[in-house]
Amino acid sequence: MANTIYNFSAGPSVLPKDALATAGAEILNYKDSGQSVMEMSHRSAVFVEIFEETKSTLINLLNVPDTHEVLFLQGGATTQFAAVPLNLIGRTGVADYAVTGNFSGLAYKEAAKFGTINLAASSENTNFTYIPKQNELNVDPNASYFHYCANNTIYGSEWKYIPVTGDVPLVADMSSNILTQEVNVSRYGVIYAGAQKNMAPAGVTLVIVRKDLAGSALPYTPVMLDYAAQIKGDSMHNTPPCWAIYMLGLVLKWIEANGGIAGMEQLKRERSGLLYDYLDNSDLFSNPVNPKDRSFMNIPFITGDAAIDADFIKSAEAHGLVNIAGHRKVGGMRASMYNAMPVEGAQELVTFMKDFESKQKTTVAVGGTAETDENESSAKL
Amino acid sequence: MANTIYNFSAGPSVLPKDALATAGAEILNYKDSGQSVMEMSHRSAVFVEIFEETKSTLINLLNVPDTHEVLFLQGGATTQFAAVPLNLIGRTGVADYAVTGNFSGLAYKEAAKFGTINLAASSENTNFTYIPKQNELNVDPNASYFHYCANNTIYGSEWKYIPVTGDVPLVADMSSNILTQEVNVSRYGVIYAGAQKNMAPAGVTLVIVRKDLAGSALPYTPVMLDYAAQIKGDSMHNTPPCWAIYMLGLVLKWIEANGGIAGMEQLKRERSGLLYDYLDNSDLFSNPVNPKDRSFMNIPFITGDAAIDADFIKSAEAHGLVNIAGHRKVGGMRASMYNAMPVEGAQELVTFMKDFESKQKTTVAVGGTAETDENESSAKL
Repeated sequence: MANTIYNFSAGPSVLPKDALATAGAEILNYKDSGQSVMEMSHRSAVFVEIFEETKSTLINLLNVPDTHEVLFLQGGATTQFAAVPLNLIGRTGVADYAVTGNFSGLAYKEAAKFGTINLAASSENTNFTYIPKQNELNVDPNASYFHYCANNTIYGSEWKYIPVTGDVPLVADMSSNILTQEVNVSRYGVIYAGAQKNMAPAGVTLVIVRKDLAGSALPYTPVMLDYAAQIKGDSMHNTPPCWAIYMLGLVLKWIEANGGIAGMEQLKRERSGLLYDYLDNSDLFSNPVNPKDRSFMNIPFITGDAAIDADFIKSAEAHGLVNIAGHRKVGGMRASMYNAMPVEGAQELVTFMKDFESKQKTTVAVGGTAETDENESSAKL
Repeated sequence: MANTIYNFSAGPSVLPKDALATAGAEILNYKDSGQSVMEMSHRSAVFVEIFEETKSTLINLLNVPDTHEVLFLQGGATTQFAAVPLNLIGRTGVADYAVTGNFSGLAYKEAAKFGTINLAASSENTNFTYIPKQNELNVDPNASYFHYCANNTIYGSEWKYIPVTGDVPLVADMSSNILTQEVNVSRYGVIYAGAQKNMAPAGVTLVIVRKDLAGSALPYTPVMLDYAAQIKGDSMHNTPPCWAIYMLGLVLKWIEANGGIAGMEQLKRERSGLLYDYLDNSDLFSNPVNPKDRSFMNIPFITGDAAIDADFIKSAEAHGLVNIAGHRKVGGMRASMYNAMPVEGAQELVTFMKDFESKQKTTVAVGGTAETDENESSAKL
């Protein structure tokens, strides 16, 4: 394995080295407490301070208004696929879902257990290569909420606008683009995000809930999925995932120290710009997504030849560019570049792709010659 | 803060120093992978190996038979309070619950959302100072399952027998005594346990399910709480809590290296024996639980004087004996001593309690004399 590796995993993914180093230095004895953060009572003053600081840093970074509550929960986005309808659909029994990729499709399927779900938009007709426009959204004014997935991790597309839905509360799964751009939180009823892409290791889920929407959960809502209970307990209805919250705090401080959300936005534009520029000029690789709807974080690409794709993935891994295989649903390659991916990672990837492409051209040329030679050899026999 | 501290937290609690040291040494670069375990794709070969090894170590330690599946989930025992009825109560619509403390009471309350719940036994009449005997259990042969909490963390009692329930599947919350004794897993339908007491940091929940009981979840079961979906996905229906699972693996190896379950059982008897022996001979401190039903892990004690209790808690903390306050529901003190608590911790606590008791006697004596002196002084004036 190369000494420096770049990890393009779609999640869990790369974390800031500074955050990991701090965690390593404190792992046996956090700030002279004599305890690891992993050993602390979640009710102890020393942990409560970690928790409160993490929460206030997140509130500051995202400018979360007082109308909204920040929760650190367990179970990932998939648990929220159920929690959202369980908490919100009771008002009218109906909700709108835009399906623009794998996870929004799963959210739609899960929600159908709890009420009537309208397919408010879909890009399945082109295998999810685009994001529907505002005038293509069928918003039901009677819907309890409108749900969409702000960035599609597998298909590599991203909503570049916030849907306008009138009085229907907006709900967004921001797992793969949270903290990569400014968000007008006041426009949302619920924002949720698994942490393991842009924020922290797997095991904690950020949920931002407009407080007036909590308290109307369906009667068979598990208490752990009830926003009102979690708000009341300040994310500690039971023992929270303390270590993941601590790591989140370290990453948030790293974001603050690196220009905050504006800094993250600049980094994502630099990284993705390098790769898209190359892809659009490559004869070997291509990206299938409508240019205006391309994701800043997840960039799928293919050669059109499964054997070459496989060779590329293997060679990249040997070169220290790991977890570059596309999702098993779509094949090909995918570079996921979240907040903690340095620009050097994108540069190294593009350099490697250019080399691979030029070798490929040579190989094709040499291959052609070799075949001719073989034919000639055969002819000579 | 003292250099060596002993942490008596009821959970999260003390972890083996060896496990924490290994985690610290590997935190930036796990086994030359160039990645932290916190950064790894859960589908990568390097993480799948960690996962599989953790699972097989647990299966070996607890002798889990092939009839049962081991799951590593999120959300703690409180999530299982809902998952158990959601998965199991559909068969008859009825379940039996024994209520012997705080968490079994919460489980009972949560289950009532999903069906008809029989109170099969309760020790609430004495504020949970005992465990009902077999002949005091009202087992309904029509029940879908019989639920009990094997160890009561707050009240300090423990079931020393496995309830006999005929064909009614047994379900046990073993959060606070898992891996402290041998368990005949084949006698259970479901065993579950939050990890943050005996096994790992908070953030992973062990669930052992008899496979034939999965697949009949109620229609409105969130997929993340559906045992069949989690069995199908081998605990990876979505991204699992990778770091907590890795830490669990390190702790399980430590248990193996320290005599396995038999080693843990010996340790718990030594630790709790030291404290109970002292408590039963103390004039100052006492434990309210029926001696036959006392917990090996959680030992509550009181002086009967709230001011002295408060003084004890403060002095103990200054002496490096931390998190010794009783739960806010019961007050007083509580020593929780799980697998990773060294016997020296119990010795240190008992020594400190003896000192405190003898100082208390002196203070009372001196206080008496002083009062006499003062009266005499007054009389002289």
